[in-house]
Amino acid sequence: MCELLGMSANVPTDICFSFTGLVQRGGKTGPHKDGWGIVFYEGKGCRIFHDPKPSVDSHLAELVRTYPIKSNIIISHIRKANRGKVDLMNTHPFVRELWGQYWTFAHNGQLKGIKKEVLKDFFPVGTTDSEHGFCWLLSQLKKKFKERPKNETLLAKEIRKLLSKLGSMGVSNLLVSDSKYLYAYCSTKLVYITRHSPFGEAQLIDADLSIDFRKHTGPKDVVTVLATAPLTQNEAWTSLQPGEFQVWREGNLVKI
Amino acid sequence: MCELLGMSANVPTDICFSFTGLVQRGGKTGPHKDGWGIVFYEGKGCRIFHDPKPSVDSHLAELVRTYPIKSNIIISHIRKANRGKVDLMNTHPFVRELWGQYWTFAHNGQLKGIKKEVLKDFFPVGTTDSEHGFCWLLSQLKKKFKERPKNETLLAKEIRKLLSKLGSMGVSNLLVSDSKYLYAYCSTKLVYITRHSPFGEAQLIDADLSIDFRKHTGPKDVVTVLATAPLTQNEAWTSLQPGEFQVWREGNLVKI
Repeated sequence: MCELLGMSANVPTDICFSFTGLVQRGGKTGPHKDGWGIVFYEGKGCRIFHDPKPSVDSHLAELVRTYPIKSNIIISHIRKANRGKVDLMNTHPFVRELWGQYWTFAHNGQLKGIKKEVLKDFFPVGTTDSEHGFCWLLSQLKKKFKERPKNETLLAKEIRKLLSKLGSMGVSNLLVSDSKYLYAYCSTKLVYITRHSPFGEAQLIDADLSIDFRKHTGPKDVVTVLATAPLTQNEAWTSLQPGEFQVWREGNLVKI
Repeated sequence: MCELLGMSANVPTDICFSFTGLVQRGGKTGPHKDGWGIVFYEGKGCRIFHDPKPSVDSHLAELVRTYPIKSNIIISHIRKANRGKVDLMNTHPFVRELWGQYWTFAHNGQLKGIKKEVLKDFFPVGTTDSEHGFCWLLSQLKKKFKERPKNETLLAKEIRKLLSKLGSMGVSNLLVSDSKYLYAYCSTKLVYITRHSPFGEAQLIDADLSIDFRKHTGPKDVVTVLATAPLTQNEAWTSLQPGEFQVWREGNLVKI
């Protein structure tokens, strides 16, 4: 199994604090030592860092942890390999372009039988069931909509349908983004917290580190963080229900 | 205009020395201050770093310059914007998946009229003519070959034809890779050097730095570096001819 971390914010925000907690689980407080990755969206562009090394020992992870890259949407993943060997090509998040946007995908779980699903236009580079599932998702979206639909509720509903199908193939907790929205699907384990004014202090569970968000935020900031398990010990994280699908934009939940 | 840097090697090799020379041209010894990017292939996987900041001031570029990431194929680009604003999404190299492989593309020049060319299956995220040209290249390859052709000479000849067409649209020096080969096309300016045993010393042009390759190489290593202009002052770089197309694999030129 793996761990996920996601962020949706209405102002460019860094993830240094949360990522510091997550990376401890990549070989120190957790067994997820088979690589890690992170994508930062900045407008339509994105930066992606992948490393097949344990995140807790990774020079690159140290850079990401200490160098504040400000972003509105972030997806990160630390890997405990079960399908597909430890290899750069098998490291999440995966990225593909669809309709002139970069789509990214990080998955925690197994997708039994996914490799029997026929793909079109999107093919895996590596050997994980997760990447196959991502290629299947995009193949289906492209088959359904030749261009990105103007009705974004329609798009979100289609994504919900497809992620639910992935969820029916085994454990499947997912974070997906198209640079505009952060989509989350919970099969078994996913929690979130939305931070807004008045901000307070938070203390990591996995490292001896606390932060006073009042020193780093403005009064109108809204920042939602999603994770496989709570990252802080003194805040109230909300669990998603099995089968729950969420669409986040600028830190807020979008009704669909 | 921009500057290109490429590497093809038969053993995983880092690019720290050459990249140190290149980044000086990103705002110090050269005017290419509108961002930079680099892709490192490791097998079928790749790592990509993009930054819209000048490479000479970039924290990320410093990491790439000092942290030896070993790779068989590397493509890097420093940008002087002429078409498309300074933005992460407009930063080369661009990446797309075709036939289950990551293709990357870096371009120096302008492609007049490229945006009139019809695209299919691959669409630009940003606004540069370069990315449009890349999407056109992949659209054409996918139209011609439903799967990757087993006859790779046939594939290389098709790529040569398509890059030559891009070359006919204006200045177009190009480095392209599919994780197996490094393809180079020269419209006006591209040079290369192949280093092999017996190795010697090299001195950068753009920085006060020299290296003794004997300390970093084995007797069977073959490493080819391509660049817009020579990076070292005491070695003999070979210029490609206008219209010349090269295919590199493991440091050696492949006959097509």
